[in-house]
Amino acid sequence: MKTMKNFLAIVLFLVATPFMSAQTKELLTLDDLMWGGTSFWKHQPEGFYTAWWGDRLVGLNYNCFSLLTDQKGRSKYPEMVVTDSEVKPLVKDGTNGDGLSFYYASFPEADKPLVMLQTSKSRFLYDWEKKQIVWSQSLEAGRGNSEFCAASRSEAYTKNYNLFLRTADDKLHQISTDGSRELLYGTSVHRDEFGIHKGTFFSPSGKLLAFYRMDQSMVTDYPLVDIEHRVAEAAPEKYPMAGMTSHKVTVGIFNPATDKTVWLQAGDPTDRYFTNITWSPDEKTIYMIELPRSQKKAELVAYDVATGARKAVLYTETHEKYVHPTHPLTCLPWDDTKFIYQSERDGYNHLYLFDVQGNEIKQITKGNFVVLELLGFNAAAKSVIIKSTESSPIRNNYYSVDIESGKRTLLDNGVGIHSASLSASGKFLMDRWTSPDTYRKYDVLSTQVGKRGKNAPVNMHTSQAPYQEYDLPEVSCGTLKAADGVTDLYYRMVKPVGFDPAKKYPTVVYVYGGPGLRNVEESWNYSSRGWETYMAQRGYLLFILDNRGSCDRGFAFESATYKHLGVEEMKDQMKGVEYLKSLPFVDADRLGVHGWSFGGFMTTSLMCTYPDVFKVGVAGGPVIDWKFYEVMYGERYMSTPQENPEGYEETSLLNKAKNLKGRLQIIIGYNDPVCLPQHTLSFMRACINAGTQPDLFMYPNQEHNMDGHDRVHLHDRITRFFDDYLK
Amino acid sequence: MKTMKNFLAIVLFLVATPFMSAQTKELLTLDDLMWGGTSFWKHQPEGFYTAWWGDRLVGLNYNCFSLLTDQKGRSKYPEMVVTDSEVKPLVKDGTNGDGLSFYYASFPEADKPLVMLQTSKSRFLYDWEKKQIVWSQSLEAGRGNSEFCAASRSEAYTKNYNLFLRTADDKLHQISTDGSRELLYGTSVHRDEFGIHKGTFFSPSGKLLAFYRMDQSMVTDYPLVDIEHRVAEAAPEKYPMAGMTSHKVTVGIFNPATDKTVWLQAGDPTDRYFTNITWSPDEKTIYMIELPRSQKKAELVAYDVATGARKAVLYTETHEKYVHPTHPLTCLPWDDTKFIYQSERDGYNHLYLFDVQGNEIKQITKGNFVVLELLGFNAAAKSVIIKSTESSPIRNNYYSVDIESGKRTLLDNGVGIHSASLSASGKFLMDRWTSPDTYRKYDVLSTQVGKRGKNAPVNMHTSQAPYQEYDLPEVSCGTLKAADGVTDLYYRMVKPVGFDPAKKYPTVVYVYGGPGLRNVEESWNYSSRGWETYMAQRGYLLFILDNRGSCDRGFAFESATYKHLGVEEMKDQMKGVEYLKSLPFVDADRLGVHGWSFGGFMTTSLMCTYPDVFKVGVAGGPVIDWKFYEVMYGERYMSTPQENPEGYEETSLLNKAKNLKGRLQIIIGYNDPVCLPQHTLSFMRACINAGTQPDLFMYPNQEHNMDGHDRVHLHDRITRFFDDYLK
Repeated sequence: MKTMKNFLAIVLFLVATPFMSAQTKELLTLDDLMWGGTSFWKHQPEGFYTAWWGDRLVGLNYNCFSLLTDQKGRSKYPEMVVTDSEVKPLVKDGTNGDGLSFYYASFPEADKPLVMLQTSKSRFLYDWEKKQIVWSQSLEAGRGNSEFCAASRSEAYTKNYNLFLRTADDKLHQISTDGSRELLYGTSVHRDEFGIHKGTFFSPSGKLLAFYRMDQSMVTDYPLVDIEHRVAEAAPEKYPMAGMTSHKVTVGIFNPATDKTVWLQAGDPTDRYFTNITWSPDEKTIYMIELPRSQKKAELVAYDVATGARKAVLYTETHEKYVHPTHPLTCLPWDDTKFIYQSERDGYNHLYLFDVQGNEIKQITKGNFVVLELLGFNAAAKSVIIKSTESSPIRNNYYSVDIESGKRTLLDNGVGIHSASLSASGKFLMDRWTSPDTYRKYDVLSTQVGKRGKNAPVNMHTSQAPYQEYDLPEVSCGTLKAADGVTDLYYRMVKPVGFDPAKKYPTVVYVYGGPGLRNVEESWNYSSRGWETYMAQRGYLLFILDNRGSCDRGFAFESATYKHLGVEEMKDQMKGVEYLKSLPFVDADRLGVHGWSFGGFMTTSLMCTYPDVFKVGVAGGPVIDWKFYEVMYGERYMSTPQENPEGYEETSLLNKAKNLKGRLQIIIGYNDPVCLPQHTLSFMRACINAGTQPDLFMYPNQEHNMDGHDRVHLHDRITRFFDDYLK
Repeated sequence: MKTMKNFLAIVLFLVATPFMSAQTKELLTLDDLMWGGTSFWKHQPEGFYTAWWGDRLVGLNYNCFSLLTDQKGRSKYPEMVVTDSEVKPLVKDGTNGDGLSFYYASFPEADKPLVMLQTSKSRFLYDWEKKQIVWSQSLEAGRGNSEFCAASRSEAYTKNYNLFLRTADDKLHQISTDGSRELLYGTSVHRDEFGIHKGTFFSPSGKLLAFYRMDQSMVTDYPLVDIEHRVAEAAPEKYPMAGMTSHKVTVGIFNPATDKTVWLQAGDPTDRYFTNITWSPDEKTIYMIELPRSQKKAELVAYDVATGARKAVLYTETHEKYVHPTHPLTCLPWDDTKFIYQSERDGYNHLYLFDVQGNEIKQITKGNFVVLELLGFNAAAKSVIIKSTESSPIRNNYYSVDIESGKRTLLDNGVGIHSASLSASGKFLMDRWTSPDTYRKYDVLSTQVGKRGKNAPVNMHTSQAPYQEYDLPEVSCGTLKAADGVTDLYYRMVKPVGFDPAKKYPTVVYVYGGPGLRNVEESWNYSSRGWETYMAQRGYLLFILDNRGSCDRGFAFESATYKHLGVEEMKDQMKGVEYLKSLPFVDADRLGVHGWSFGGFMTTSLMCTYPDVFKVGVAGGPVIDWKFYEVMYGERYMSTPQENPEGYEETSLLNKAKNLKGRLQIIIGYNDPVCLPQHTLSFMRACINAGTQPDLFMYPNQEHNMDGHDRVHLHDRITRFFDDYLK
């Protein structure tokens, strides 16, 4: 039969090459499907990039930009404004304008014909009416952590561990001089926890710069190794492990007018977290949320900018498990005396209105849903624009909330997953959205809700789904009850291409399961990943369930796992397995599991806890024992090893290494500074001691997630492992 | 058929359990077969341990010793001499004699009833006639590199990088004080090349101590990592890589009578090797063989012990490839003015007689064979006792060589592999030997060759072969021509248990192939390893061929590979494959290859050079690119990367990573200080870049070879890989 088919194929190839070349395209490769793949981009629809010029939407292309809407949000025939041919000859930084890209253009002043552009050597403002460069600033080579403030046209950046500020007059201010690997200035701190992702904070006018300083000289070095030298070199990473000595953070405020730094007088920084730095509009006060190492308390503290003095604790929140503030304050644009504070204190992240004395005025939003984002305001309407899960836990929609009444108005179409940017006045949203029926659309929405209700969205662009000429799997979504018998969990199922309900398919559970992330959303294909398509083509069924502990379902859902990460999560995943086993087309003897990071922890946990359920697993960058994980994230969910020895024992996979029966491959980045190699190497040692046989792979010079084309190699590797042992 | 067999087995089990329990023992486990296995020792025959008391052979047991022969080499009814019960009460070092073992007993004086024993805290001489401890000496805890000199009853040792000497009067002399990880005293140097395996050299009387000092501060650190701490710790290894800056060695002579050290005035030690330190009998001269970094020249140099002055270069040997002296001089016991020098200059290692002025008197041994060992002398007969390959390249036999006439007399039975110790006068050999017919025998031989020829050997003990109650494979040996068409190569073949010539078997080539080692010898099962038995039980055929480049076949054979290691070796291994393919019972579609260290290099080379020949490979601790290997061994065979760029390019597996087609698992000790992890990690990176998919495993806290029970885990792992992909 096989021979016959081959013969036929050869004949067809000979007589009908064009037809056959379409036929042979039936199967997508990992290079087609994976970000980082050599043929990935050729499949993707053209990008659609925009920026706001005041309330006018600008369309950005590589070498030009054009106006897409007028100031009333009305679509207009795209009007070309500037092309690079007129700009490049004016650039005098030695680059001849090479490297100029309008994808990064911005329009700092709503009413002026000015576009901010840059080459590799300078940043400049181009006046497209005068056809002149009206301002420029040098860009130093080798700088990092760059933050540009449009208001003051200043750039803060770090170089060689020190912090610098280049002001609009192109003058360079060196803020610190004693920076080192042990003493960092102007970088993100606390390992990017508590919503922190940067280390510089310009005041609203941009005249002052608050910044982090982190002393990590007392923190143990983890000995990572860089092999890409003639002789491999030590590349130590300061890594405070759960229960061990942590770094110390302080906050300074630099004033380029005096070249002086004022330090916030926060007291002894030992075992404390300083987060969510916020400037008052008048720049006289700076706010900071402060937590002790236990993370059971958050204090909102006001500091005097001029002296650094600690003025007052405005608000305190406590919880017996943990408090997890990740949002700065947001001051009302029309009332400097009030700000919005975000808190999970009623079980869901919601907005609260406070006055600057710390008096709570009211709860603005309320309900069994999560406010995901405070995008901004429509000042004229005195409304705040938020994104939330109100219509469904797997949807994200934008709402306008009337501050006064608390009335919420849905701004978008109420389905799917939305991501928007707000125009200068807050009157318009550029809404980029997706749903199971719609690959990707770009609509301009009004945030004005008149008496006649919302204006209809103005569609600016629609991207067509890729790969439609191929045989693709059916992707569906559903719910099942968590192991608590009450909570709805959402899953995604990807059926094998050419699905036949009479057959039994090998099935792979893909899992993350940890805090801060969810896998199932009401987007195109319910967020199914390219690799799932690849696997479905190869005859696998994929199943992805967001267990308790994952994000955007409220505090109780997330913290059900407190002090014993992995335990409740596994119970929920086993509910998923129970469901899978009830399906006639799932081969219960060929169940696999795969996940990365927390999902690698889950994968390894499932393989070692249910050795008779899962035959094959691939765990990437796993946590193996929480004592090797870092202080901020680890202690929030697990407390310290000293305070919670039972929880650490219960969840340590070193104790479960002996249970391994199936085939488990653990894959890590050899230079992973997040889940350190010690996790996986210690697990290998435990398995060797116990006589079990895991498999191992390492990607040299990769960190926690594989970058570039290595992602393709990685997924080829993962697939091969399932092909070898599960198929 | 299979079902029927199982049914039958169950029935038999039910009716005849005792019989079945014998049946189920048919298969040996890795724990039975591997050194390090939990049940290994229960299979092994009882050990037979001996020492010489003058010319009398002593049998050593754990808690006693007995006399086995008289002074004329005649076997006697074992006469118990001392048991621990009489010694232990006399030990006054606080141990009560705990830890005393007679396995380590020695008898320093031929005519006196004195036995040297030790506990963990002291070394002492027991007089078994007087029933007294007549001398004792403290043993310091934490000492390393210990060397004891019976003549002076002094012990040299290192502690915390410094060198100490404890004299017979129990006085401790600290020889160095500035020792550190970068400056070592009293340890082996030059990474154990040139026959070096220790760093202290007592003068014949033991009154003076020569020692090595190695400054490696200028050598790059390789960043190894020890994960067995709360937080993994850097464990850097000073490792001079080919072509890079190497360490500097000097030699001192310490005199405990003056507490002074005299340094040999050898000149600038940069890029030089100092080896084979030898004392003159009168202790006035010390000899050393000196090589420049190129290793193309060896100079025998005499130094004045009193001043350290360089007296003379006695002899110089050069070769366009390399000179490789690994033996100290040996002075004639009956003539202080003459010594024996060993050299490969005529193509084979042979003995040459020199006078102390450096005049060559004669070549003592000659022929197309290798002198493997100069065991000692029979002074009365003026003969030297050697071991050589004269009767066959795969045999080692002992000969007595008349210094005057050069006449060689075979002392042993002329077959198999022998390992002997010589009695005090040199009249008797304790010969421990094995051959394909004889598992292990212990015979006393006379080195006196009278007119009536040799005396018959006196058999002292015979060890029976283990595992004889199991089904074992047939092991055979043969020769085939090397790729040069001329040279005979020896191979071992291990046929599957229950071999059926009509079947086709998956076949694994086991290979080492590098200098300094051979795998095929005329010993029991031709040196077949336990794992080969295990694999043969599982239905594999094993084939092991010693290619050109391996040891004990002379200089031309070894150096055929010069400047492009692996190339000629692979050609020879492919001759082996050609032979295998000619055998009807070898399945040429299921060829695998496995080797460790140089064998790991060979395995990876073969997998990447002949991707259509070998389907599966397991490479352990491999060299991947010789530029990552160390200076002494690496540059001897490959020259430097600067001088031989073509050779390094040709043999680098980084360039061949793209060719990988079959399944190749590379396994290393994560803490391997010999073949550094950079080899394997760089190969992984090269494969990832090329899109090929090797497999990887690491044994944390293991070095170049797996220790203890990890050896069992390792071989389970290796076997599983062949079972998965070759069976």
